Amino acid sequence: MLHLVPVADAEIAGLFDGPAWIAAMARFEHALAQAQGRLGLIPTEAARAIVQALSPPAVSPDAVAAAALHDGNPAIPFIRLVGQGADDPAVAAWLHYGATSQDLVDTALMLMAARALDMLSVRLMRVGDRLAALAEAERDTVIAARTLGQHALPTTFGAKAAFWLDPLVRHRDRLAAVRREAVVLQFGGAVGTLAAFPAPVAARLSAEMGRRLGLAVPSVPWHGARDRVAAIVTILAEIGAACGKLARDMQLLMQTEIAELAEGHPGGSSTLPHKRNPVLTQRICAAQQALAGLPGRALTAAIGEQERAAGPWHGEWALIPQAAEGCGAALAATEALLCDLVVDRDRMGRNLDVTDGLIFAERLSFALAPSLGRDRAQALVADLCRQSLADGIGLRDAAAAAPAVGAVLSPAALGAVFDPLVATGQAGAVVDAVVARWRGVADGGGGSETP
Amino acid sequence: MLHLVPVADAEIAGLFDGPAWIAAMARFEHALAQAQGRLGLIPTEAARAIVQALSPPAVSPDAVAAAALHDGNPAIPFIRLVGQGADDPAVAAWLHYGATSQDLVDTALMLMAARALDMLSVRLMRVGDRLAALAEAERDTVIAARTLGQHALPTTFGAKAAFWLDPLVRHRDRLAAVRREAVVLQFGGAVGTLAAFPAPVAARLSAEMGRRLGLAVPSVPWHGARDRVAAIVTILAEIGAACGKLARDMQLLMQTEIAELAEGHPGGSSTLPHKRNPVLTQRICAAQQALAGLPGRALTAAIGEQERAAGPWHGEWALIPQAAEGCGAALAATEALLCDLVVDRDRMGRNLDVTDGLIFAERLSFALAPSLGRDRAQALVADLCRQSLADGIGLRDAAAAAPAVGAVLSPAALGAVFDPLVATGQAGAVVDAVVARWRGVADGGGGSETP
Amino acid sequence: MLHLVPVADAEIAGLFDGPAWIAAMARFEHALAQAQGRLGLIPTEAARAIVQALSPPAVSPDAVAAAALHDGNPAIPFIRLVGQGADDPAVAAWLHYGATSQDLVDTALMLMAARALDMLSVRLMRVGDRLAALAEAERDTVIAARTLGQHALPTTFGAKAAFWLDPLVRHRDRLAAVRREAVVLQFGGAVGTLAAFPAPVAARLSAEMGRRLGLAVPSVPWHGARDRVAAIVTILAEIGAACGKLARDMQLLMQTEIAELAEGHPGGSSTLPHKRNPVLTQRICAAQQALAGLPGRALTAAIGEQERAAGPWHGEWALIPQAAEGCGAALAATEALLCDLVVDRDRMGRNLDVTDGLIFAERLSFALAPSLGRDRAQALVADLCRQSLADGIGLRDAAAAAPAVGAVLSPAALGAVFDPLVATGQAGAVVDAVVARWRGVADGGGGSETP
Amino acid sequence: MLHLVPVADAEIAGLFDGPAWIAAMARFEHALAQAQGRLGLIPTEAARAIVQALSPPAVSPDAVAAAALHDGNPAIPFIRLVGQGADDPAVAAWLHYGATSQDLVDTALMLMAARALDMLSVRLMRVGDRLAALAEAERDTVIAARTLGQHALPTTFGAKAAFWLDPLVRHRDRLAAVRREAVVLQFGGAVGTLAAFPAPVAARLSAEMGRRLGLAVPSVPWHGARDRVAAIVTILAEIGAACGKLARDMQLLMQTEIAELAEGHPGGSSTLPHKRNPVLTQRICAAQQALAGLPGRALTAAIGEQERAAGPWHGEWALIPQAAEGCGAALAATEALLCDLVVDRDRMGRNLDVTDGLIFAERLSFALAPSLGRDRAQALVADLCRQSLADGIGLRDAAAAAPAVGAVLSPAALGAVFDPLVATGQAGAVVDAVVARWRGVADGGGGSETP
Repeated sequence: MLHLVPVADAEIAGLFDGPAWIAAMARFEHALAQAQGRLGLIPTEAARAIVQALSPPAVSPDAVAAAALHDGNPAIPFIRLVGQGADDPAVAAWLHYGATSQDLVDTALMLMAARALDMLSVRLMRVGDRLAALAEAERDTVIAARTLGQHALPTTFGAKAAFWLDPLVRHRDRLAAVRREAVVLQFGGAVGTLAAFPAPVAARLSAEMGRRLGLAVPSVPWHGARDRVAAIVTILAEIGAACGKLARDMQLLMQTEIAELAEGHPGGSSTLPHKRNPVLTQRICAAQQALAGLPGRALTAAIGEQERAAGPWHGEWALIPQAAEGCGAALAATEALLCDLVVDRDRMGRNLDVTDGLIFAERLSFALAPSLGRDRAQALVADLCRQSLADGIGLRDAAAAAPAVGAVLSPAALGAVFDPLVATGQAGAVVDAVVARWRGVADGGGGSETP
Repeated sequence: MLHLVPVADAEIAGLFDGPAWIAAMARFEHALAQAQGRLGLIPTEAARAIVQALSPPAVSPDAVAAAALHDGNPAIPFIRLVGQGADDPAVAAWLHYGATSQDLVDTALMLMAARALDMLSVRLMRVGDRLAALAEAERDTVIAARTLGQHALPTTFGAKAAFWLDPLVRHRDRLAAVRREAVVLQFGGAVGTLAAFPAPVAARLSAEMGRRLGLAVPSVPWHGARDRVAAIVTILAEIGAACGKLARDMQLLMQTEIAELAEGHPGGSSTLPHKRNPVLTQRICAAQQALAGLPGRALTAAIGEQERAAGPWHGEWALIPQAAEGCGAALAATEALLCDLVVDRDRMGRNLDVTDGLIFAERLSFALAPSLGRDRAQALVADLCRQSLADGIGLRDAAAAAPAVGAVLSPAALGAVFDPLVATGQAGAVVDAVVARWRGVADGGGGSETP
Repeated sequence: MLHLVPVADAEIAGLFDGPAWIAAMARFEHALAQAQGRLGLIPTEAARAIVQALSPPAVSPDAVAAAALHDGNPAIPFIRLVGQGADDPAVAAWLHYGATSQDLVDTALMLMAARALDMLSVRLMRVGDRLAALAEAERDTVIAARTLGQHALPTTFGAKAAFWLDPLVRHRDRLAAVRREAVVLQFGGAVGTLAAFPAPVAARLSAEMGRRLGLAVPSVPWHGARDRVAAIVTILAEIGAACGKLARDMQLLMQTEIAELAEGHPGGSSTLPHKRNPVLTQRICAAQQALAGLPGRALTAAIGEQERAAGPWHGEWALIPQAAEGCGAALAATEALLCDLVVDRDRMGRNLDVTDGLIFAERLSFALAPSLGRDRAQALVADLCRQSLADGIGLRDAAAAAPAVGAVLSPAALGAVFDPLVATGQAGAVVDAVVARWRGVADGGGGSETP
Repeated sequence: MLHLVPVADAEIAGLFDGPAWIAAMARFEHALAQAQGRLGLIPTEAARAIVQALSPPAVSPDAVAAAALHDGNPAIPFIRLVGQGADDPAVAAWLHYGATSQDLVDTALMLMAARALDMLSVRLMRVGDRLAALAEAERDTVIAARTLGQHALPTTFGAKAAFWLDPLVRHRDRLAAVRREAVVLQFGGAVGTLAAFPAPVAARLSAEMGRRLGLAVPSVPWHGARDRVAAIVTILAEIGAACGKLARDMQLLMQTEIAELAEGHPGGSSTLPHKRNPVLTQRICAAQQALAGLPGRALTAAIGEQERAAGPWHGEWALIPQAAEGCGAALAATEALLCDLVVDRDRMGRNLDVTDGLIFAERLSFALAPSLGRDRAQALVADLCRQSLADGIGLRDAAAAAPAVGAVLSPAALGAVFDPLVATGQAGAVVDAVVARWRGVADGGGGSETP
């Protein structure tokens, strides 16, 4: 009942299921046999027989899984069963030659992770593109910015979207870097020293394997250095947090009293006939919470002992898929959310008036400050705010009636203070800057200019 | 490829799969309809029709799961599909009367959790019984106690087993308390106020539901109070930690240079012909690491907003199963480990001699202290230790040759100092005390006597 | 700049600072010397000299701390410095006789934890009492219950307070149990076997120590069994979550558009003259987030290796204080928050009308169901809700105008449907039940009645 | 009693203490006033007065901290107190003009973080340099590689050091990237829109601020986008994990039965005269455990709501210092550990013989494989291993006596199989590759060559 659990993602889960494991392990052994055949490390006929035995392997995922419980990992039964199932004894004789279980399991996991990261990268791009489009479409839609839950100043809904997009620019770059540098071949023999082969042969073999499998070849094996796993898990959790931030904010904007946003296809209720419940944002938030704990688990696994850790290594087989599925669920739901988002611009405008002008208090203060100084201007405006609340008149009227204000600001200047779009300051520029960076127009560098 | 992932447990996983969800939801509605029929809240014929429609429900788990994605939870499509599938329109008319999605989902989850906790409790008892037997069997087997990785003093292997068992005494009690107090009925209507029914009826309905479902009835509904979920998850993670502690310690005792323990059915290697790898301890450690992060997730979910949280609640549907599966994997592997554990008593004895008597240094120091004072005794023994290391003679010989020792200790007294079993102090009493508490002979009270 | 960091609590922090460590270690050695003098294990004059040397100890916390870096723990330099500083050589000769560093450090930590838990217990009681008073005062104040951020049904603000209080009933009991069973003496000698003393003497010594220190005596030492530390940390994090839930909910009720609550002494802004920012709720939420990660850390420490772990043990010296300080900050801020909470009952009432009657939709549906069946009633009400939204008329008017409603409900019955207080169902009973349980009127048992 | 807590680091802690906060906030306001004076946004004399009032500010950290509890953050009382304390009213009038509390607090935190990251970077370089030197010095020191706790194959101690160093190459690059891209100016006004200034002025002001403070200027403000905080915390936790991995491995090599390493200045025991306890490795492990939970906390904070989160933001003020202190403690202890590490090469050699040749089993298998095939070679060697264990003869003698071996391998070839240094394979090349990458000789790219 996979879909019941909101942190799962069926498509991503399929990249790590039993057949996927078998296929990935077969790819490793296939590439190894071909490379070794070519380099003369095993007989050419053996290489050919192995390739045939693996195209595809006549091995049941369930049989491998059941045996893995007793063998300690899936590599051992996979090798045994492929060898036993082959007619040609050369298969059992030369399959997996010079490799270790960890080479096979780690590389298989990385092959599956590569596909997952590629798929997640595509989803991330789609989410970013939709967010960029949203930011542009709502570039000048005025909405209340809220700090600590309170109306602070007007901003634009486009700027809000841009601020959601901003981390994705960095995460896109980081995801690409992690995909390039952390998703790599594992090929080091029993303890990472490639002791089965002479040095020049070992290097050529690794290069050949990497080329055939489409994986980068690390400068040294990484049997005991698990930081790459942590890097993969962490960027996926970070992407999940970016989605979660957006979803949390949207949930707040969807509240009954605020109602500035709605999901396009809200859920109903089993008992409340009037309910239009957010269903996508809650899926994102559930995935985000599950993801947040995974980097800590990866960092604990990373201190696993010596050349191969008894437990931490094995835990990674579930950890990477969980991270990928959670991130996949978050991205998929975010895309769906953006696809059908209902934006109520009128309501955004009306909510601005909820405080009867108090949201322009800082604006008024700044307009007065060049003449009065910041402290006296703030004190005057604070007085006006209190008066506005006490008398039930708007801040604008209170300001217009105050001689201290009239002495400094003309009616036109006062009007400009209370103009919502003017009050959004650089909100439009924020949209332009973030969208340009997302689209690659602006220069990169992590979104910062070094001093 | 379930078994490939060491933190899963097929049997426990089966308690939370699609059919289990359907069955648990059906049990809730079944009990609700019967209770309401009996109390006259719905027509008797409707109750009968509902019971029939749910015996068993003609609803596919996959259909519910797929619809749950759009409805936001599995309760809504379950109700809809059961209603649509029934010939008698009374089913759609009276099914789920006065209940909310959360009543159904929370109670279904609790019904599944109840079975899981009962199963885990049985496993815990078996593990504890085996540990108690091990502690008794090895009550007087002398082994080196190691603090900070260094030989400290002799203890007994039985005492080590008793110290592993000791937390399980507390966890057994806590698990029973959690099972009793935290695995409860949810029945509060849309917002926990049971607004659909008059007060006396509501109370009778809840009591009737609890009776039929075998669940305790909480004094008030818990739609927004999720501490019970955290309590369930936490005790399971704590049990996992107790298993992990044992497994970690055993891995250390299985190291090649120490070799005091071995798994009965060790794994091989895909490349190393001589390897006898621990496979059960690594499974336990992997499960423990996955479990350790779950209480934090539950505590984050517990602050979910208002009367029903959009995300945190949904995340619990995966959280409880993950905790149960991880705990189940840890307990199953621990039981298997204890079942076939190979204890090398000779090796334990020989390893005691590795330091050529230094492990008795504290004993010697205490034997001298009544005459010399603690500080002078310690300084003298430290000198003897250095001399023993420098000259390559054992500490016993060094002590026997030292006039300052001879002035205080007779040869017989010196011999008693270096008697391994005497040196284990109250190790035997530790075994007796913990085993008695496990077996319920001693009084309870969390293992402590209040002052 | 302690107070700057919102997760700290100066009063609790003072229970674990340098002088507190010195005092706690002195208490242990004081009790040990007295007990050993009385039992004849050390010379009576030595016991007297030790007691004098420790009343108070002439040892600087900084000196102990600096030396602890090299000695590996604070016990070793404490013993050395007290011995060196004493005029009577009997102090160095007999201080710490037969104990190990871990006995001293663990017991000192537990003595400090005991005071912290007692102080936290008092704070918890005060918070609970204020919540109980709030629940009673607002027992019948109608407010919108919100599920998934949407108006669901009317409830009472008193019921909301009762639901916040409900977990505290359980946490109070659990905290007392943890205080009683997990905050215990450590006295086991170098490896937990009390090898320095004959068995009967060892037991009497432990009992005497526990009595003098006011700590429970565990049935066996717990050098390697760290579940008690995890239990302490976990209950503190759980209490923090209960506070966090309340604070999160209140923040939502304080939002500008909702404004049903306000802090009595809100903060200002450095730039926004009109802002009234929540400052206490944010402190609680910050503390809660810091606390949520600590049980996981305790569970990781709990698998520390063998008779004393090299790292996990040492980490506990920071872990317990962090948990206590975080919990203390959460409780103190919660008490302050409740002390001055501004409840706007009018606004609660007005917000109920935001949906123009839709919040009564379930009520209407239930009123129709006995005649129409649940499904047809829900469908009819859903139609009326849509009509109400489309035509901009209230649900009540829409219902009154609908012949299908009129055929079933009299005008009086329809009026009762839209009566807010009636609509709150058992909200008042929820208040009564939880408050009674808090006050100990009702029976205990974890808030559940077993089936 | 700071040093008592092993996860703290006094030097790093000093970068975040009260005076450091005051100094960092003063730097921000200093730069702001100067930039605004130069750009004509505030009167030149006001800028001068502010600069004077801040050189240094006559504000007590304790007063700011105490007030921050009520104001909600330290920026508000800092501004107020500096203004009140200045003789020139222009200070109160123009200080903090157009900025918000978050600009001041976030930038102050980043200024402190910048210094911390620079200091940590220096420590990281020193640790890496020492590891590189260790790897080179022990390039050809043969030691047993252990997988799952069991002897697997010979490797070199240099290769072990190189594998510890390998992640630091990546972490060094990532730390530099995080320092460059994530430690940035915050300057966005109340809600990140810089609404107080016209657009061109706002951009020039930000650039000028960045230049004066030595901080990169982000393309847009980041009031609600907290991924940079998570990036900072995560890389520090990752560095801590790299130290923890090394420390954990070393602890295992320091065990009494293995004794291949020792700390140069081991700790003693309060009761065991012979103990030489590791004290630095335990400090590292304690720090690592505390660090592992922090990325999860940062990711939870990162979904804080809207333009400023009530709680998550405030929690970051403790989070970044905790991460920096933990990382600092881990690096400092690792450097000290490497500085005085005692390497027992003889013992490493002798431990290789513990299995009487079994550690060469894979070597033998590979030597036989070209003639027999992998499967038959492995089966033959497995038989020889069993025979060696059963008969108590070494594997070499067993092999020499086996006709099946003699038929394939000459005595010279058999001798080469059991040559330890030859058996280490590419271990020396691993050292060369990693050290070259650390020293920048080799090309970069995250340690991988793309396919």
